[in-house]
Amino acid sequence: MFYAKSIAVVGASPDERKLGHIILKNLIDGGFKGDIYPINPKAEEILGKKVYRNLVDIESNVDLAVIVVPSKFVSSVLEDAGKKGVKNTVIITGGFREIGGEGEKLENELLEVAKKYGIRIIGPNCQGINNTHNNMCASWPLITKKGKIAIISQSGTVAAAFADWCEMEGFGFSCFVSLGNKADVNEADLIEFFSNDGNTEVVSLYIEGVKDGRAFMDVAKKCEKPIVVLKPGTTERGKKAVESHTKSMAGRDKVFEAACKQSGIIRAKNFEEFYDFSKALAYIPKIGGNRVLIVTSSGGAAILAIDVLEKHGFNVIYTPEELKEKLREVTPAHAILDNPIDLTGDANAEMYKSVIELSQDYVDAILVIFGDPIENASEVIEQCWNEKPIVVCYTGGGDVEREETKKMQSKGIPVFPTPERAAKAMVALRWWYGE
Amino acid sequence: MFYAKSIAVVGASPDERKLGHIILKNLIDGGFKGDIYPINPKAEEILGKKVYRNLVDIESNVDLAVIVVPSKFVSSVLEDAGKKGVKNTVIITGGFREIGGEGEKLENELLEVAKKYGIRIIGPNCQGINNTHNNMCASWPLITKKGKIAIISQSGTVAAAFADWCEMEGFGFSCFVSLGNKADVNEADLIEFFSNDGNTEVVSLYIEGVKDGRAFMDVAKKCEKPIVVLKPGTTERGKKAVESHTKSMAGRDKVFEAACKQSGIIRAKNFEEFYDFSKALAYIPKIGGNRVLIVTSSGGAAILAIDVLEKHGFNVIYTPEELKEKLREVTPAHAILDNPIDLTGDANAEMYKSVIELSQDYVDAILVIFGDPIENASEVIEQCWNEKPIVVCYTGGGDVEREETKKMQSKGIPVFPTPERAAKAMVALRWWYGE
Repeated sequence: MFYAKSIAVVGASPDERKLGHIILKNLIDGGFKGDIYPINPKAEEILGKKVYRNLVDIESNVDLAVIVVPSKFVSSVLEDAGKKGVKNTVIITGGFREIGGEGEKLENELLEVAKKYGIRIIGPNCQGINNTHNNMCASWPLITKKGKIAIISQSGTVAAAFADWCEMEGFGFSCFVSLGNKADVNEADLIEFFSNDGNTEVVSLYIEGVKDGRAFMDVAKKCEKPIVVLKPGTTERGKKAVESHTKSMAGRDKVFEAACKQSGIIRAKNFEEFYDFSKALAYIPKIGGNRVLIVTSSGGAAILAIDVLEKHGFNVIYTPEELKEKLREVTPAHAILDNPIDLTGDANAEMYKSVIELSQDYVDAILVIFGDPIENASEVIEQCWNEKPIVVCYTGGGDVEREETKKMQSKGIPVFPTPERAAKAMVALRWWYGE
Repeated sequence: MFYAKSIAVVGASPDERKLGHIILKNLIDGGFKGDIYPINPKAEEILGKKVYRNLVDIESNVDLAVIVVPSKFVSSVLEDAGKKGVKNTVIITGGFREIGGEGEKLENELLEVAKKYGIRIIGPNCQGINNTHNNMCASWPLITKKGKIAIISQSGTVAAAFADWCEMEGFGFSCFVSLGNKADVNEADLIEFFSNDGNTEVVSLYIEGVKDGRAFMDVAKKCEKPIVVLKPGTTERGKKAVESHTKSMAGRDKVFEAACKQSGIIRAKNFEEFYDFSKALAYIPKIGGNRVLIVTSSGGAAILAIDVLEKHGFNVIYTPEELKEKLREVTPAHAILDNPIDLTGDANAEMYKSVIELSQDYVDAILVIFGDPIENASEVIEQCWNEKPIVVCYTGGGDVEREETKKMQSKGIPVFPTPERAAKAMVALRWWYGE
């Protein structure tokens, strides 16, 4: 499915506005290295590719069929796939179980055909899949930046927003999977797959309901990579909306919460946590204990972080006398050394570097807050990155902040825009590596 | 103080790196329309302005003196101010009570001189003031965009970050006040002032401690404008850090929380709420009740919002049959009309407009979520803006999202980047206008 070497786009279209065109174009423009077969009974050539009338007509092997034809034709396309020996399909088309009645019947038909031929289905009613490490954007928009996070989502928009943030911040992602109706492939199958995918470090999952709770917990427990979950429907009204959105059962939230705890799943409370936790877990090294030191140019920003850290079991240590003595030699006279180490407004990158280097033997992690337009912040962090784990917040630094943040993130160093978000990311790291 | 017509910069410097230069330059470049007097005993002219040896030498009236000389000289500058009849001062210089011992003594001296002459002081140890409506940036960085929010802060960085976000999003601010040590002017004085300032709609306050609890509550109660407060030190460790940062007493958090409730102050839990609540209260019209309808192209994003709304007392109504019938005529067959009104992925701006127009008589507010790259979203919102209150979230829309968001915000229409943040902003509006 994800490392397909040949792909058919069934329902490829010459019309630029249609998904059957956009997906074909994204596969080509995304640099897919295998064979691409557009299928359309009425066209000869689309985007320079020879068009086939149906799957059966293709001479060579087809690893994956992406299906975008109207719902009533999908099951006959699956029949063709079966005859041709295509084992993997992604069905973009909507109009199945999510609309009830006739749609439900159509979806059951699909499943029968799939069962007959041993075909796996992602979808229907989904936004496709994109494995950047296989240059395979069978989805939209076109995103090609390779990263370490696999995004699995039951909402196209949540996944798109997540992917957009990954792209904007320069992290990219490993894979994007839109679950759709989960007629066949579900979250448990995908967790299992990504737990063995060498290009994925973190599995990020937006789901509205779990298909098989037992299977879900089993694969989650076995998965050695962090799984971050965002699951709405925590209120009664939210649950009702879940039902009408994806016909999922949100279930009792306390039960799901307990299941997450038992299976080592990290649960995000909102979209920003979902993104921040994933980014932190994918790119920040293991934090081995709860002793933290804060280096900052802003006392206020540090205190906002301290409240979050303290509430979640971190030990914001008091600076040992021995360390204080060392720090006195590299900091201005008016700096406050009590932790937060507050270099105050005239801090510069060199001071940060000295403090980080001197402090790292005394703690398990360092929270670095740049609270002013401090130039070359990125160089310092890069130089110190392979020592004690560092979590970076850059705030209140205007254009310099934007430039330095971009530099760091382009090197795979996460930067958080507020002290609370940086602190919360540290908390997620401790949840994963043990409190 | 804030509408000064003539300003002296005491400690103006020809050295571009010094604050005494930067502040003078920002006043000039910011287009201050009154007279500007640089003061420096050793220079003749700085940035094209005639330099005076001291305040007393200036021939005309001076409404405000901004003081940037070393701490030991500040009290003699205040003496000069007294003799000259300058009643308002902003003392940027640090090295007073915040460093204890000798600094405390120096700060007491200042207060004595000020008392003798009836001089008011903002600071010392602060980042200045900026009243955009008086083109008066006696601070840094230079920000000139006029807006409706007054920012008062005991942390330079928190204020700078807030101001930067205001500037980046096109909202600007009315005034920026850095409190510093609050030797004289404190949060209560400023709330009182801004409650009567015609250019300010919302007062946004970052404080680490309250100087006079009774006075604070009194002015807050009397203030007819929303006051949004971010106050850290909610944990024991945070309180300790507050003490060493600004020598403030954070006090018992429960007491402060109760005081906020009693005085109608809206308390933000973190920096993003601080910004979002301020923006919402300054720019979104009154929401007169708790019935809300959601128009979206993304079911998932809507559900994330619903959970937040429900938890905070909003009534996410079920769409009345009468309205459903009307909606059926303007929405695609596969749209879900149960509230959220889910137009699904092929929604366009025109559909949003029809739904908003038809729905507004049935609810007190509309949450509009653009969950795809929907073009002309900004036009629709602008056209509907003066009817029922609208809160906008734009997410998952890539470059189109960025462009449309920018257009809306440049017209003073707030856009929130996640459904939860939009929903929470609605909650803040209800807190203010009555639940």
